[in-house]
Amino acid sequence: MPSVGVIGATGAVGGVLRDLLRGWDDVRYFASARSAGTELDGKRIEEATPDVLAAGGLDVCFFAIGASASLELVPHAVRGGAVAIDKSSAWRMKPDVPLVVPEANGERALEHNGVIAVPNCSTIQLMVALKPLHDAAGLRSVRVATYQSVSGAGKQSMERLRAESVEDHDLRADWTMEGDEFEEEAKIREETRKILELPELPVQATCVRVPVLVGHLEAVWIETEDALDPDQARALLESAPSVRVVDFPSPAQAAGINDVLVGRIRRDPATPNGLALMVAGDNLRKGAALNALQIAELLLERSALAA
Amino acid sequence: MPSVGVIGATGAVGGVLRDLLRGWDDVRYFASARSAGTELDGKRIEEATPDVLAAGGLDVCFFAIGASASLELVPHAVRGGAVAIDKSSAWRMKPDVPLVVPEANGERALEHNGVIAVPNCSTIQLMVALKPLHDAAGLRSVRVATYQSVSGAGKQSMERLRAESVEDHDLRADWTMEGDEFEEEAKIREETRKILELPELPVQATCVRVPVLVGHLEAVWIETEDALDPDQARALLESAPSVRVVDFPSPAQAAGINDVLVGRIRRDPATPNGLALMVAGDNLRKGAALNALQIAELLLERSALAA
Repeated sequence: MPSVGVIGATGAVGGVLRDLLRGWDDVRYFASARSAGTELDGKRIEEATPDVLAAGGLDVCFFAIGASASLELVPHAVRGGAVAIDKSSAWRMKPDVPLVVPEANGERALEHNGVIAVPNCSTIQLMVALKPLHDAAGLRSVRVATYQSVSGAGKQSMERLRAESVEDHDLRADWTMEGDEFEEEAKIREETRKILELPELPVQATCVRVPVLVGHLEAVWIETEDALDPDQARALLESAPSVRVVDFPSPAQAAGINDVLVGRIRRDPATPNGLALMVAGDNLRKGAALNALQIAELLLERSALAA
Repeated sequence: MPSVGVIGATGAVGGVLRDLLRGWDDVRYFASARSAGTELDGKRIEEATPDVLAAGGLDVCFFAIGASASLELVPHAVRGGAVAIDKSSAWRMKPDVPLVVPEANGERALEHNGVIAVPNCSTIQLMVALKPLHDAAGLRSVRVATYQSVSGAGKQSMERLRAESVEDHDLRADWTMEGDEFEEEAKIREETRKILELPELPVQATCVRVPVLVGHLEAVWIETEDALDPDQARALLESAPSVRVVDFPSPAQAAGINDVLVGRIRRDPATPNGLALMVAGDNLRKGAALNALQIAELLLERSALAA
């Protein structure tokens, strides 16, 4: 078994990672100075400093921290000999960093130069659902309206929702605006294009935060090059990896499970090769921690990781 | 001033109607036997029976009750000489019943045969936003993902959400399924076609109930016959009746106000004449009670109502 570091062990994604790594023997936890020295699962939390990460002894480092901290720390872990699997947005669009959803483009992970990026939670579940349809009929456009839970914005947002009166529940957008879209919407487009290797694919997202703790839902419309009727799409999805076809995919149903839920597969009457579908996933699990772990497992299986 | 009846005075929409009718002198409240005899706003609630409604003395009856009760009671009110303005789904698709959003097709109200139907809440706010764009460029298709508050399902659903733990908040679909879509989704399509008089318009809705008390949000994609860029669309909407253009339309912002909020107007990259936009409205107010009252006011202005 490889020696593993979880950087950001105290966060929302870090918590799911710790859970998923229960069967692994050699796991060290890292966090900021604030949490360092305290214990989690009977383990002392180490401070994530450049020196500690560069000192070696780690084969894989899962980074579950913010983009600016990741930009600073990841190179030190790589210098120390680790493969860094990073869930922040810091590395995703760099040309020499593979951006990997194992079900969609797992092979790309083997081309890494030390860093492998985990896509945005909203992108991951979309890729799990759309890759089999793209393989069969060729994607021509994607429109997606998201219903994103507050855990995507971190533990503090979950606490804020828990403390909020139901009278104050609203639909919000807590992302930075870039031009006429939210950063989150640009991420979904750019990451989808990179993962599917379709640099010109029209992708438009409308992102909304909903008062739900865990699980993201997406209402999706796609157009394909070749005809694909709802029954064919359902059959493809039923045999696709990590997909469970259900009647109505909901966040609560998706929370805590590994599969992405897909349902409400319908013909889009506005265009000849159009389909509507809904996709739900656990944004902390398949949308972050599990996807990162699957990348490490893929490297292990292919003997591309010290073990 | 005409003599007015509010049938269903104790419900969620009835409450907003009572509020909006404060300046009117001759208003009677009706409800089922269960509430009859009790008082509201210092007025005795009468039981809504066929005989009482057929007895005459009412110029306008606002029906804010369920479809089956409406089907039974409305004809008696009409027999008694009232114009029935009904918010249920019972009368909307009948060929001789006008389905009216005053901003979109107010003239149709004058053609009534005693009954005028108020569209579904989700349809009304969509029509207020889309009519000015349709007039300018001709609608070719509509795709809409809804984020609908629980008050759309009535007072009990609001109580249920208030009593629910935040841990149990989920995204749901509480509508009847008809074929591959929810009744609500079929309503949005059929009502849009009737109001805009575009019987073949492709309209696809994906409807979702969100844990918010009041206010519906819609993420909309439209295609138009003629080119319409986001700046032109914004200018049209800024001068459109009952529209307020904002950065991010949210249910809480829309709740309690008369205007429909429209924002996030963007070009849709998937199609030459495509636009994305978001629309929020108060589903109890413009989505029901206010729209009904505006129909009565329109009849009054045109002297089409006894006064």
